[in-house]
Amino acid sequence: MAARSACPAFHAAIELIGKRWNGLILQAMLGGCQRYSQIRAEIPDITDAMLSQRLRELEDAGLVERDVVEARPVEIRYGLTEVGRRLAPVIDAIAKWGADWAATRSTAQAEEVL
Amino acid sequence: MAARSACPAFHAAIELIGKRWNGLILQAMLGGCQRYSQIRAEIPDITDAMLSQRLRELEDAGLVERDVVEARPVEIRYGLTEVGRRLAPVIDAIAKWGADWAATRSTAQAEEVL
Repeated sequence: MAARSACPAFHAAIELIGKRWNGLILQAMLGGCQRYSQIRAEIPDITDAMLSQRLRELEDAGLVERDVVEARPVEIRYGLTEVGRRLAPVIDAIAKWGADWAATRSTAQAEEVL
Repeated sequence: MAARSACPAFHAAIELIGKRWNGLILQAMLGGCQRYSQIRAEIPDITDAMLSQRLRELEDAGLVERDVVEARPVEIRYGLTEVGRRLAPVIDAIAKWGADWAATRSTAQAEEVL
């Protein structure tokens, strides 16, 4: 029936990027954040435990890589892998649709009041 | 720091479409499924209780509308709203990236074996 068949890769992808906080983490990293404290600052409501866990999960999923920069003190940098960077147009498309959807919601709510 | 700032509409959008099963439900509906049984058939692992709950949530979110078709027996049809249909390019972009990501994973796993 459906022109687009249920595909395991699609299911895994949409649930990975939709998992709580992952969208904001990926958005922050696509925007240039490399240090833990920078990513953290972009997402005020996340806890440190949750951010660390998500970064590890995204590393296991092959989207994020962790580099130890030899400096004093030692610095940890987080970067997107090549496939991680290829999420940029996907994240942009979701952001665009999200703004569109929010506008529809405001209109619907305004109409309910009238 | 980040060029793309953390936006509540983006956060809500990515978590709505990434919520368990929603991606597959939206994909089935974008593919033309209108009846409950058709959507159900596209997602073998979902339970009836979960599919009903998700359809109600998507209706509350303004993405899905439920029509009662006057027939014998009465027929229920599920359709996407205008803003719901505008998810088509987003879902396609995620599916494309998902296939890309899956290919990367297979290569990485193959390299580990070698």
